[in-house]
Amino acid sequence: MTTLRFGVLGLGRIGRIHSENLMRAVPGAVVTAAAEPDEENGRAWCRALDIGFFTTNPSEVLERDDVDAVVICSPTDTHASLMQAAAAAGKHIFCEKPISLSLEETKGTLEAVERSGVRLQLGFNRRFDHNFSKIRQLVQSGSLGQVEQVTITSRDPEPPPISYVKVSGGIFRDMSIHDFDMARYITGSEVDWVYAVGSCMVDPAIGEAGDYDSAVITLQCRSGAVVVIQNSRRSAYGYDQRLEVFGSEGSAEAGNDTATNVQVRTEGQVASDPPLYFFLERYMDSFTDEMKAFAEAMREDKELPVSGQDGLAALRIAEAALQSVAEKRPVAVKADD
Amino acid sequence: MTTLRFGVLGLGRIGRIHSENLMRAVPGAVVTAAAEPDEENGRAWCRALDIGFFTTNPSEVLERDDVDAVVICSPTDTHASLMQAAAAAGKHIFCEKPISLSLEETKGTLEAVERSGVRLQLGFNRRFDHNFSKIRQLVQSGSLGQVEQVTITSRDPEPPPISYVKVSGGIFRDMSIHDFDMARYITGSEVDWVYAVGSCMVDPAIGEAGDYDSAVITLQCRSGAVVVIQNSRRSAYGYDQRLEVFGSEGSAEAGNDTATNVQVRTEGQVASDPPLYFFLERYMDSFTDEMKAFAEAMREDKELPVSGQDGLAALRIAEAALQSVAEKRPVAVKADD
Amino acid sequence: MTTLRFGVLGLGRIGRIHSENLMRAVPGAVVTAAAEPDEENGRAWCRALDIGFFTTNPSEVLERDDVDAVVICSPTDTHASLMQAAAAAGKHIFCEKPISLSLEETKGTLEAVERSGVRLQLGFNRRFDHNFSKIRQLVQSGSLGQVEQVTITSRDPEPPPISYVKVSGGIFRDMSIHDFDMARYITGSEVDWVYAVGSCMVDPAIGEAGDYDSAVITLQCRSGAVVVIQNSRRSAYGYDQRLEVFGSEGSAEAGNDTATNVQVRTEGQVASDPPLYFFLERYMDSFTDEMKAFAEAMREDKELPVSGQDGLAALRIAEAALQSVAEKRPVAVKADD
Amino acid sequence: MTTLRFGVLGLGRIGRIHSENLMRAVPGAVVTAAAEPDEENGRAWCRALDIGFFTTNPSEVLERDDVDAVVICSPTDTHASLMQAAAAAGKHIFCEKPISLSLEETKGTLEAVERSGVRLQLGFNRRFDHNFSKIRQLVQSGSLGQVEQVTITSRDPEPPPISYVKVSGGIFRDMSIHDFDMARYITGSEVDWVYAVGSCMVDPAIGEAGDYDSAVITLQCRSGAVVVIQNSRRSAYGYDQRLEVFGSEGSAEAGNDTATNVQVRTEGQVASDPPLYFFLERYMDSFTDEMKAFAEAMREDKELPVSGQDGLAALRIAEAALQSVAEKRPVAVKADD
Repeated sequence: MTTLRFGVLGLGRIGRIHSENLMRAVPGAVVTAAAEPDEENGRAWCRALDIGFFTTNPSEVLERDDVDAVVICSPTDTHASLMQAAAAAGKHIFCEKPISLSLEETKGTLEAVERSGVRLQLGFNRRFDHNFSKIRQLVQSGSLGQVEQVTITSRDPEPPPISYVKVSGGIFRDMSIHDFDMARYITGSEVDWVYAVGSCMVDPAIGEAGDYDSAVITLQCRSGAVVVIQNSRRSAYGYDQRLEVFGSEGSAEAGNDTATNVQVRTEGQVASDPPLYFFLERYMDSFTDEMKAFAEAMREDKELPVSGQDGLAALRIAEAALQSVAEKRPVAVKADD
Repeated sequence: MTTLRFGVLGLGRIGRIHSENLMRAVPGAVVTAAAEPDEENGRAWCRALDIGFFTTNPSEVLERDDVDAVVICSPTDTHASLMQAAAAAGKHIFCEKPISLSLEETKGTLEAVERSGVRLQLGFNRRFDHNFSKIRQLVQSGSLGQVEQVTITSRDPEPPPISYVKVSGGIFRDMSIHDFDMARYITGSEVDWVYAVGSCMVDPAIGEAGDYDSAVITLQCRSGAVVVIQNSRRSAYGYDQRLEVFGSEGSAEAGNDTATNVQVRTEGQVASDPPLYFFLERYMDSFTDEMKAFAEAMREDKELPVSGQDGLAALRIAEAALQSVAEKRPVAVKADD
Repeated sequence: MTTLRFGVLGLGRIGRIHSENLMRAVPGAVVTAAAEPDEENGRAWCRALDIGFFTTNPSEVLERDDVDAVVICSPTDTHASLMQAAAAAGKHIFCEKPISLSLEETKGTLEAVERSGVRLQLGFNRRFDHNFSKIRQLVQSGSLGQVEQVTITSRDPEPPPISYVKVSGGIFRDMSIHDFDMARYITGSEVDWVYAVGSCMVDPAIGEAGDYDSAVITLQCRSGAVVVIQNSRRSAYGYDQRLEVFGSEGSAEAGNDTATNVQVRTEGQVASDPPLYFFLERYMDSFTDEMKAFAEAMREDKELPVSGQDGLAALRIAEAALQSVAEKRPVAVKADD
Repeated sequence: MTTLRFGVLGLGRIGRIHSENLMRAVPGAVVTAAAEPDEENGRAWCRALDIGFFTTNPSEVLERDDVDAVVICSPTDTHASLMQAAAAAGKHIFCEKPISLSLEETKGTLEAVERSGVRLQLGFNRRFDHNFSKIRQLVQSGSLGQVEQVTITSRDPEPPPISYVKVSGGIFRDMSIHDFDMARYITGSEVDWVYAVGSCMVDPAIGEAGDYDSAVITLQCRSGAVVVIQNSRRSAYGYDQRLEVFGSEGSAEAGNDTATNVQVRTEGQVASDPPLYFFLERYMDSFTDEMKAFAEAMREDKELPVSGQDGLAALRIAEAALQSVAEKRPVAVKADD
């Protein structure tokens, strides 16, 4: 088995997860180089993981011969330029979503990647969640019949800081975008129409920043399926991540994951565990599995499981959702052009 | 305890349930008279239940001195005229929903009832369901905080005959109307806007009859809550009746009722019971309880739990939903006038 | 359909349930006479239910021509003599368990009943519980394979008054006897050996009265199945009534029944309903169904579903359990003689 | 953080798990040497994991200066002698259960370990299971009150080969021993009396080998708690590992773990996942966590979480269970001598 050599760009929370997974949990993968502006912490992390080369300058990673592919975990506003630089350097790319908050820049970047011939996988990690991928399998096996209605529940335990809200691109591009991708992944269909209700029920400061903290979104798919997404930036009982598919032959529902399955019965009630706290707990295995899938598909020269076009399609839906709230009407999702 | 004497108009499926409940399960109630066009079956039913007076002509029930209140269980298109006749005769009224498929006739009938001074309760029986009424109590107790998002799932096991579809008033007035009432009951709020997606995925004959068999409806409530309703005329696994409320302090979810809570574990799976088959099984207790509530409120001269205005409000939402599908845009629910 | 005419002996809690069920819920049954020492309450109950004849003297019920069968709901120490008197009077018998706390008296009474030719059903109502009867059906269908291990959990919400404990015959004859019957009902096998651990963990006064309030009992069945029974006179979370069967092809588990199936999620936990409070709530339908089964089997001249021998067999197991605790060893259940 | 250097003795299934965990998942641990009779596979494993020293001779591991502690994963009949050799060499010990199938050898080995001053942890990994350790915490917090009844369900998916059965020491020493330890762990009490029913219901060949394949065991604890254990060597629906504690203030129940929490509803049933297949799947995290706990307790010089005395106590219960089945009577567990 040839070893795939990775360079990791950005060693924040998600960069650490990916680098540790690549070193410890992904067969046939090794991280040979990493870049991170915070020199002290970045250097310490590399030492702990035995990553041989550290720099504060991402370009130095891209220049190295012992790097086959890069994992882009830097802030969103650097994704597009780093992707283009990686493509120019002939490095394959795994990039966290989104490519860019701008449709134009997204399209330009994807074109540059395509011209260069390097391969690209986007970090829609929820496709690798054990519950959701089982539902996808059930749908694809035909055992639920034709998919008619889908319900996606996605609520964060608490809102991010206002400073983050301001640069996030808004709830649709930042948070719902995972659910837009899930809608496409589960139905296997493109989305034609979006009707979104956005409101500010959690924190007025989010509204003052021009964003919404709550949303209910209806997607009409080309296949006929109708998808409902319920989002909130705050959930009193923790991270609420559920999915239900109703088909002509049956339905499937994925509940939340919990730390244990212990039931406690005391006077007046039966209590069980709340959902796992947040995405690091709930989706930890999916981060490992998306990286395994990337490495395996690269090595076997198979199609990568999440493409750049998947990122573009989800962003188009987000744009339509924004317009829908603003104009209080259903909005058509632009066809690929 | 004074005994309330009832006349039952119509001894079809639901008329039999109400008359049997009144004779056997509602304290302080008795059925003294009944009318039913099918003379043979009606007479036999009255004999079996010890109902003293039987006629094929509803007017004869309304004329009797030993009838304090009537229960209208006849076909929908007779509801309005029977209500008006009962009001004129000074009989209190329990009427199955809907009052009428026409907004104008509904309003006229309600005015006639109000002028007459008789009291009226509508048959939105699901308000008396053990699961849903518990969720209402949770909401009203404040333990869920402010209600932000509501999901109502309501799917029939199989579509009605086309002959019924044709006179039903359509899915929104016939089926979703229960869910519109539930939305108002749970949120305690009026509905301002409706966006409905209607489609025909179950049986093309329903579409040819000018109706939809599947619908996903978004209601924006005056309170800020957003309600999503998912309807289908067919569910492979049986009658799917669920409700979930998401509030600022927590959420509550009512699952389906089942015949037993036995889990069977065999090779490869753990199986439990499907939902109870249809509304007679699922909502049997609620039919008893709505009649108990009617009798008790009448006797104690308290406010009746479901008013004529509740019927009117649900019908207005249904009208808006129809228009929304036709015009593919959110439609404002007309204010009461 | 010929109407079966019942006399009810004893109008305490369970006598009222049976008489109301016979009048309202059992087709083809009517209560024509009742006896109860508390004249005022007994007479009022008969008036409310339209029972024509009331007396404080049970013999007067047994003498009546318009009584086909009696339902014996009087205190335990009167069961045997009333059964014998009813048999002598040619009345069929439904009798609450137990026949007697004495094996000798039980056998003598059963012989008298047999000689008289009247028919007898015992009140092991749990056989008619929806959950347990489904598990019995699963066992009998063969879908679980050969039954190997059974777990019966049976815990009361709170201990009875000491005055009751003193005349109850002790936990094995009074409480576990239902579980002994359930063991035979589910396995379809006689019990050969009993090993019982009895202790007093709930209330020392129960120990002082010579009884146990907690028990763990192992039954070895002739079929090879091993049944474990867990009893307690007190359960902080309410009436705990569960049953699990493990067979060579799979297992089936019946959980507790609850008032609703609403889940409430708030900070730190997901809460659902506790078990229904006590036997009146949990087993209400089974009381109706055992009486329906009695009436139907009588009318159709079929075998009655719970025989006097079933009562004797359960009592023999209780005797063996008592001896097992006293002698701290497994005790053989005496064969029928 | 000082790095703990491990030598692993035996690279079979469990040796591979422990060595991989020590290299990848346990902070501050490293495997510097390993021994395994199968030279080819052992050497390959060491190369893959970057373990520097490999030998087929365990003594060479014990002689090395760069080994602080050994992990004994060799066949059961070598445990005692390797423990004694490790103790003599001054190496701390983690040993898979059991120490020995003989009480005498177990005691002798523990004495040798104690004299030597090295530290010892036994591999009762289920103490580290997320579900069971939560129940232990609930018990210790007092929120369930006094523990009165415990139910341990432990069934393997399928019986081991007869060759294994013959050297296993029998079901009580090989399989139930985990449950005996669990009983002590959960109740925090020693066991005074054992009553065991053993039978052969799965495979007659197991009986011919002088062993049982099914057992129901009652343990009476010094605290008053009564524990029931249900064992089977075969479970049609997979590895059945459950635990329930009933206390004076409430109860707690741990269900099986599953691969997903997806519910699939199709005609006539609702299906969910079966239990995880076997101990490698179900207890994988507990293997990691027991090793983390070992490393942490060693480093911080704290008490090790599973002692040699815990192994001895469980073995004593197994001996009593064997005697109980043979003599068909409850048997006292010998006090420590």
